[in-house]
Amino acid sequence: MPSVRIALAQVNPTVGDLVGNAASVRRSARAAAAAGAQLVAFPEMMLTGYPVEDLVFRSSFVAASRATLERLAADLAADGLGGLPIVVGYLDATDGAGGPEPRNAAAVLVGGRVAARYYKHHLPNYGVFDEDRYFVPGDTLTVVRVPVADGTEIDIALTICEDLWQAGGPFAVARSAGVGLVVNINGSPYEANKDDVRLPLVRRRAAEAGATVAYVNMIGGQDELVFDGDSMIVTAAGELLTRAPQFVEHLLVHDVEVPAAGSGAGAARVATPASAASPDVTSTAEMAVERVGINATPPTHPGGGPVCGGHAEPLTDEAEIWHALVLGLRDYVEKNGFGSVVLGLSGGIDSAVVAAIAVDALGAQRVVGVSMPSQHSSGHSRDDAAELAKRTGLDYRVEPIQEMVDAFLTNMSLSGLAVENLQARVRGVILMALSNQEGHLVLTTGNKSELAVGYSTLYGDSVGGFNPLKDVFKTLVWKLAQWRDAEAERCGEIPPIPESSITKPPSAELRPGQLDADSLPDYAVLDAILAGYVDGDLGHAELIAAGHDPAVVDRVLRLVDTAEYKRRQSAPGTKISIKAFGRDRRLPITNRFREGH
Amino acid sequence: MPSVRIALAQVNPTVGDLVGNAASVRRSARAAAAAGAQLVAFPEMMLTGYPVEDLVFRSSFVAASRATLERLAADLAADGLGGLPIVVGYLDATDGAGGPEPRNAAAVLVGGRVAARYYKHHLPNYGVFDEDRYFVPGDTLTVVRVPVADGTEIDIALTICEDLWQAGGPFAVARSAGVGLVVNINGSPYEANKDDVRLPLVRRRAAEAGATVAYVNMIGGQDELVFDGDSMIVTAAGELLTRAPQFVEHLLVHDVEVPAAGSGAGAARVATPASAASPDVTSTAEMAVERVGINATPPTHPGGGPVCGGHAEPLTDEAEIWHALVLGLRDYVEKNGFGSVVLGLSGGIDSAVVAAIAVDALGAQRVVGVSMPSQHSSGHSRDDAAELAKRTGLDYRVEPIQEMVDAFLTNMSLSGLAVENLQARVRGVILMALSNQEGHLVLTTGNKSELAVGYSTLYGDSVGGFNPLKDVFKTLVWKLAQWRDAEAERCGEIPPIPESSITKPPSAELRPGQLDADSLPDYAVLDAILAGYVDGDLGHAELIAAGHDPAVVDRVLRLVDTAEYKRRQSAPGTKISIKAFGRDRRLPITNRFREGH
Repeated sequence: MPSVRIALAQVNPTVGDLVGNAASVRRSARAAAAAGAQLVAFPEMMLTGYPVEDLVFRSSFVAASRATLERLAADLAADGLGGLPIVVGYLDATDGAGGPEPRNAAAVLVGGRVAARYYKHHLPNYGVFDEDRYFVPGDTLTVVRVPVADGTEIDIALTICEDLWQAGGPFAVARSAGVGLVVNINGSPYEANKDDVRLPLVRRRAAEAGATVAYVNMIGGQDELVFDGDSMIVTAAGELLTRAPQFVEHLLVHDVEVPAAGSGAGAARVATPASAASPDVTSTAEMAVERVGINATPPTHPGGGPVCGGHAEPLTDEAEIWHALVLGLRDYVEKNGFGSVVLGLSGGIDSAVVAAIAVDALGAQRVVGVSMPSQHSSGHSRDDAAELAKRTGLDYRVEPIQEMVDAFLTNMSLSGLAVENLQARVRGVILMALSNQEGHLVLTTGNKSELAVGYSTLYGDSVGGFNPLKDVFKTLVWKLAQWRDAEAERCGEIPPIPESSITKPPSAELRPGQLDADSLPDYAVLDAILAGYVDGDLGHAELIAAGHDPAVVDRVLRLVDTAEYKRRQSAPGTKISIKAFGRDRRLPITNRFREGH
Repeated sequence: MPSVRIALAQVNPTVGDLVGNAASVRRSARAAAAAGAQLVAFPEMMLTGYPVEDLVFRSSFVAASRATLERLAADLAADGLGGLPIVVGYLDATDGAGGPEPRNAAAVLVGGRVAARYYKHHLPNYGVFDEDRYFVPGDTLTVVRVPVADGTEIDIALTICEDLWQAGGPFAVARSAGVGLVVNINGSPYEANKDDVRLPLVRRRAAEAGATVAYVNMIGGQDELVFDGDSMIVTAAGELLTRAPQFVEHLLVHDVEVPAAGSGAGAARVATPASAASPDVTSTAEMAVERVGINATPPTHPGGGPVCGGHAEPLTDEAEIWHALVLGLRDYVEKNGFGSVVLGLSGGIDSAVVAAIAVDALGAQRVVGVSMPSQHSSGHSRDDAAELAKRTGLDYRVEPIQEMVDAFLTNMSLSGLAVENLQARVRGVILMALSNQEGHLVLTTGNKSELAVGYSTLYGDSVGGFNPLKDVFKTLVWKLAQWRDAEAERCGEIPPIPESSITKPPSAELRPGQLDADSLPDYAVLDAILAGYVDGDLGHAELIAAGHDPAVVDRVLRLVDTAEYKRRQSAPGTKISIKAFGRDRRLPITNRFREGH
């Protein structure tokens, strides 16, 4: 059986940066060629970045993507890489009866031109995805016959992302077409534990196709999404040949045995395991198969013995989430051209964790932390903020707020909650003034539990362009802090987060002696209810059946329902859960439905 | 041919208010019965309100909708209305292989029970609509045979909203089924000029079905959408029999000649005009037809001669938009339980128009206007704000900001833009403090032109829970002001908006002598480019081909692209255009694509 050296380019494209993304392809293709690769695959929508959302509707953008593809093919040939078949995702459009039909497309570039194209068949339209809004699905499986060495050829089928998640689709067609390898290119966003799902899924599809599957995913942050990579190659028999580390760019190069074209081995050799006849059959594809012979110099067979990409060690849950948050923040900052960030340091756990994430993402010299004490700020809060600054080395400032607060109080007649919120808003004005004056991106630090129940001041502590903790429940914030400090100790470094920020009872410190526990249930109780209601769409009766106190459920659900208007104006932040606030969860503000009533 | 008295209940449901919406059905059904109606139709998703968005994913909500439907059927019978067939929209779910399949459904209630159900066939998934995310499409046309009088019966087909917009779908099937009447129930949001499209569309479908079409739409505001009603009845030959006024609740009662069931007249009588074979064929329906005979006391034929619903006078464009903005604001306030609103009055045109809309929506006693002069505020600005307050009678306050601004300036080292934004943010803090202290909803007043180019201060003039001008270009703001004042004069009332607010050059007044024209092109030029770029998805080359100055196009497009982060945190506001900022236009924040470069 021919051995083929495959390179999976797990890279970090930027939405809209067609020139930069094409340059990234050329760089990785050169590296792959230097490593003796005979086939290179790049992620879904590599040239445009992903997701491009309503940019699809601008014909100038579609035209730019197509032109970039053609130019890239020529540039690769000029680079001396014309003989190396390259699979790359891009935005295409075909002519339809009612006008252009946008396509989520993959192309094979070889010999200086576009040798073959494939259009994504299964379009996800759930969660954060709106692909029915954008694309027309493909109806043809593209099979490319690639010369590999000594006159032998192999048949490769192209598929894109969601195609992998559906049984009875292109992978089943690939089996009947007898291909030896299915390339699956992805823009698959991170969610906690998603990596645990991917490998079994790739195994199921490899068994369904009766072929090895080469899965390549992008990395990087794009607004509320972060992509984790986790590229891998799995044989039809389910063997994981190689797997890339998460959250870093990586060129995964591996030698794979692929049956020669026409041997029919792919379809016949592997028994379909029971799981392939799984109940997740959602489509019986009646796809046509288009066979494209690639008329190019066969890539030379690599010398120097076999190459193995190796297996990246899986990360623990906390490590994985920390890396996701760091990369999500770093890319928001870098891709939007900010030099630095600023945030308020209260001495509490949320701002401490955000500061630590920011320092990990950007380096301490690019992070400004501002302590903004009021008359209600405790001594330990100021100490903890200063201690955090000392441990991390960030740029620390102190701006007491009382004079500004008093200017409002002497001119207006305010009391109670209005005074509490005023303090938070004065802090917001200070952070925004620093941002305007010095050019920092403001980070806001409200965790998912606070966002859920509206325990925040709109235009106060909620001000900011990005919120690293937006999708992190409070109980997880504590776990991440403990993990980060333990990780520092393990590496012989100073733990960034002061112990007392982790252990003290949480407080907004907007009135004397105030504690979160005065207004909210214990966070362990709260987060369990929120996980059911927000992430799981459970109703009142189901939450009570799960053992929660009915009165507490009532209270929490009412808080969540009535805080929708605050969330609608909240900053973006990295999605790490199965359901993040943002486009993942679309609820009306005006909504009189009250669970259980 | 039997004459049937049809009542179309153009009512205003509230999302999530199942009890209130069912009560509204009972009220209108009683009124319809009193008017001798033999059939009553209510809008799409009447029981749940529309759109319910991700509430669809909560099984408790689906169950509540189904239970409300059953209870309503029983209640109607208890009201003595069991003999009157009632068509009503609701949320349903059927059992599918992979779990419950949510349905956008219509039911016929008669004799105390649900006699028939229909599931929407065409699911819109563009613009503001995400129905592929939520619903499984129906595949069966439901035809109901209703006894009308003297032993005769008529066949009625049920359809829902988008079904009307697609040729070759349920209306074509209705023709082959030989029905005499197609009821089309709608949750069709307002857009300027959409009413000009509806009548020709209903005519095309009536011709396609060879049957009279009874079109009923809801009214009311729901977050960023406002529904305008515009219910009507059109014969197969294209005659508009009756049409309801826009933006008000209305029970449209009209006698319609409908061929008796089995006469085949519907299919044979009307020649299909050329327009029915139009190029908008997007679906060849292979729908089954389910025939349901309604086993109920035939509704008594109404006495007292024929009833005619009349023709509402069409509104002018400005009047229509004004009514849309008034209703959108009123319903946001009322349905979210606010007693009053507060806004800053600068003396400029935007705040003056918002104040006038608010007074029209809520009455002057529920509107608080706050003048917040700074050292840069001109005398005429203060005068114009006071004059507006005097003309409208709203609750007028003055809160000078300089002391608060100075408190920040003495404690921080700020200059330039940071100082300008500081003033806007101090005003934002004042409005939010008044909101917290007194319970008002804060209105923000940034028009669509400002939102497009980011000419606003985040957390400054942008603070607020609702923005009536969010989708109104500046040039249209002026037109609306002129229209509103002229309308007042026509009615012998005091024009609410001072002439000088309309005529003076716009200025943010954040530094001495500042004018919008220092930073932006003339609004006539700007709005034309924005209409092309934002509303029309035109690219750089197309805008230049349309005659715009390339340098101005460059500058405007760059401003629009880089203001996305501000829009993401902006308040909701009523959509009136073909493409509103909000879920109608989904663009990434992180986006390096620059048109023309």
